[in-house]
Amino acid sequence: MPSRAVITLTTDFGYDDPFAGVMKGVMLGINPDVEIVDITHGIKPHDIREAAYTIGMNYRFFPPNTIHIVVVDPGVGSGRRPVIVSAERHYFIGPDNGVFSYIYGMQPESLSVCHITAEHYFLSADSPTFQARDVFAPIAAWFSRGISLSKFGDPVNDYISIALAIPDLSDAGMIRGEVIHIDRFGNAITNITASELGQLSSSSADSSLRIMLRDLSVPLRKYYEQADKGSLAALMNSSGFLEFFMYEGNAALTHAIATGDSVTVSKL
Amino acid sequence: MPSRAVITLTTDFGYDDPFAGVMKGVMLGINPDVEIVDITHGIKPHDIREAAYTIGMNYRFFPPNTIHIVVVDPGVGSGRRPVIVSAERHYFIGPDNGVFSYIYGMQPESLSVCHITAEHYFLSADSPTFQARDVFAPIAAWFSRGISLSKFGDPVNDYISIALAIPDLSDAGMIRGEVIHIDRFGNAITNITASELGQLSSSSADSSLRIMLRDLSVPLRKYYEQADKGSLAALMNSSGFLEFFMYEGNAALTHAIATGDSVTVSKL
Amino acid sequence: MPSRAVITLTTDFGYDDPFAGVMKGVMLGINPDVEIVDITHGIKPHDIREAAYTIGMNYRFFPPNTIHIVVVDPGVGSGRRPVIVSAERHYFIGPDNGVFSYIYGMQPESLSVCHITAEHYFLSADSPTFQARDVFAPIAAWFSRGISLSKFGDPVNDYISIALAIPDLSDAGMIRGEVIHIDRFGNAITNITASELGQLSSSSADSSLRIMLRDLSVPLRKYYEQADKGSLAALMNSSGFLEFFMYEGNAALTHAIATGDSVTVSKL
Repeated sequence: MPSRAVITLTTDFGYDDPFAGVMKGVMLGINPDVEIVDITHGIKPHDIREAAYTIGMNYRFFPPNTIHIVVVDPGVGSGRRPVIVSAERHYFIGPDNGVFSYIYGMQPESLSVCHITAEHYFLSADSPTFQARDVFAPIAAWFSRGISLSKFGDPVNDYISIALAIPDLSDAGMIRGEVIHIDRFGNAITNITASELGQLSSSSADSSLRIMLRDLSVPLRKYYEQADKGSLAALMNSSGFLEFFMYEGNAALTHAIATGDSVTVSKL
Repeated sequence: MPSRAVITLTTDFGYDDPFAGVMKGVMLGINPDVEIVDITHGIKPHDIREAAYTIGMNYRFFPPNTIHIVVVDPGVGSGRRPVIVSAERHYFIGPDNGVFSYIYGMQPESLSVCHITAEHYFLSADSPTFQARDVFAPIAAWFSRGISLSKFGDPVNDYISIALAIPDLSDAGMIRGEVIHIDRFGNAITNITASELGQLSSSSADSSLRIMLRDLSVPLRKYYEQADKGSLAALMNSSGFLEFFMYEGNAALTHAIATGDSVTVSKL
Repeated sequence: MPSRAVITLTTDFGYDDPFAGVMKGVMLGINPDVEIVDITHGIKPHDIREAAYTIGMNYRFFPPNTIHIVVVDPGVGSGRRPVIVSAERHYFIGPDNGVFSYIYGMQPESLSVCHITAEHYFLSADSPTFQARDVFAPIAAWFSRGISLSKFGDPVNDYISIALAIPDLSDAGMIRGEVIHIDRFGNAITNITASELGQLSSSSADSSLRIMLRDLSVPLRKYYEQADKGSLAALMNSSGFLEFFMYEGNAALTHAIATGDSVTVSKL
């Protein structure tokens, strides 16, 4: 561990309650030198799938050895296990309920999952309803001080993975995907990546591709300003996913785009 | 003071205006090594009572010697005094308008309240409408550098305490309380604590307790998942308060629960 | 540069997406010791003018040598240039699209603007849609490590300034301005400053001034509590601007005040 460890937070706690602040207080009490970064507390309440996408697409922009706490945990207090996941030189701490499914799905060579059982590291206030404060925060802070992973529990192989939306490539020459996220600007992000598009075409702005959002045919652009104002267009976004947008407009509002809407890509 | 002081912020400033960011700029100019943590900026505008509960229930999760700035201050610029409160090895800085009532109500042995009068520590921009920036932030930052409390002003005993909702125990065998907060998940937190329940029953999940929210009879559970999906239930939450919830649902929306709703607990 | 550099963020990214968190990850990977402060991520999407006011009015509350990243960037990925602005012992990094217009308008003696062209400092992921992550964040982090400004590109003089709302003083004895921002409390901030008022009157609470919001005559007060509850009043706010407010009320909601509403000040 470097001297100044980084811990990130990805939760569905929102910003109006003191939950995330209290987690930070607990961690600073254990490791005063840790640097804590909010990835977001705006995951939709109880949306495990959105949490899985968010951490899976974004962890790699943090330094190696960063510890990522992910808490979307409708089953808090029940039997579900707390885990530490080690993958790609990053660490992930949270409930074993599927929030790490995207990371598991990347099939990292270095993957290991540890069931946290070392209760002497838990906060003595240990409550059945706020394990982010009483289990995940103190475990992350102790771990950031350099305590070895094996001290927190034993490896498990039966960790939980939930089904994420994977593009369907079963028709030759056709990719079938869906919208998985709407961002603040009304952009609609799909589950189709450059690697799937590459199976159809070698260029990410190939005009020979036919892109359909529901029954709308949508042109592919390189960047936002390249599109006509007020018309729907698509591009490969900064995370490597196909995204629908409207230059100087809000695509999701204008076209009533929602999570789950069907998307297809084929050769013309 | 430790070398890396912690200052927390609890305000009604919201997240869309630059108010909290500017306070941080002022503090970093005075003490570049301070660690600043947002507890929340989502207190309802001008809701002194909500601020009093929030800081009172949560300060203890931060390290000893943490300095907590609390600003919900509808009377800013008028005669109300700025104060530093010392209690339970923590410090609290804000307006003398009741935001520290919960802390006063805990009757800490070590309580002292200092009226801040040392204007040479104020920001020279001192404005009658933004004393969070011009008074509370610089005072907290100077204090975090180890300047002794007595340098900021003199002790006072006539500090202001507002009435918080205290459960009524006047009927033998009956606790009368109320809902004091609705959180992001639609959970409804009451003012009834384990210590009051203990006067009726020795177990926090005693099935012999009759819990009523308005005219609804509600069962007591240990954790969220223990309840039936979609039905209203209660538990003792992570702060030690009786809370109503709906497993995989939003209790407050479904049952139109609001702050002030009556709650009673009695023996069956 | 001091050993612990400060970088601020002012964006229209909101709080529900991971954009700002990812920028912090990139910066901590380059300079682990940097202190990052959110001014706000609540600028209205694509509102370059609001960003220009926000950074222009608030940068001076941060320590000298602070680096301010401002990203409201509807033209991201097109030809618009990334720039570093040096002014008043602060640094500003963002798109050359007008977000620094307020700073330019202050006519600082020390102004210089550098067109960032040193692509070897960009993130290798360089995407046409998220230059905040791939250009502005890494440039700020490298700059915070003490690399000299001249290493990032060459000075330019044809930087872009957009028209901000400037009070009209063309009628003798009359200031014509407008509402430029509504804050969380419903206060309506105008573009009229103490310096313009000073041309009419030597006192900021001079009862001989006639203040009109649309067709409403509004009295001038010193601080919020000085006004009658529920009645509209005005004061000079903490940033030095004329502001309309309602003591213990929400002025903007009650009187349907909006950005652009006309304001006049004259001698009685």
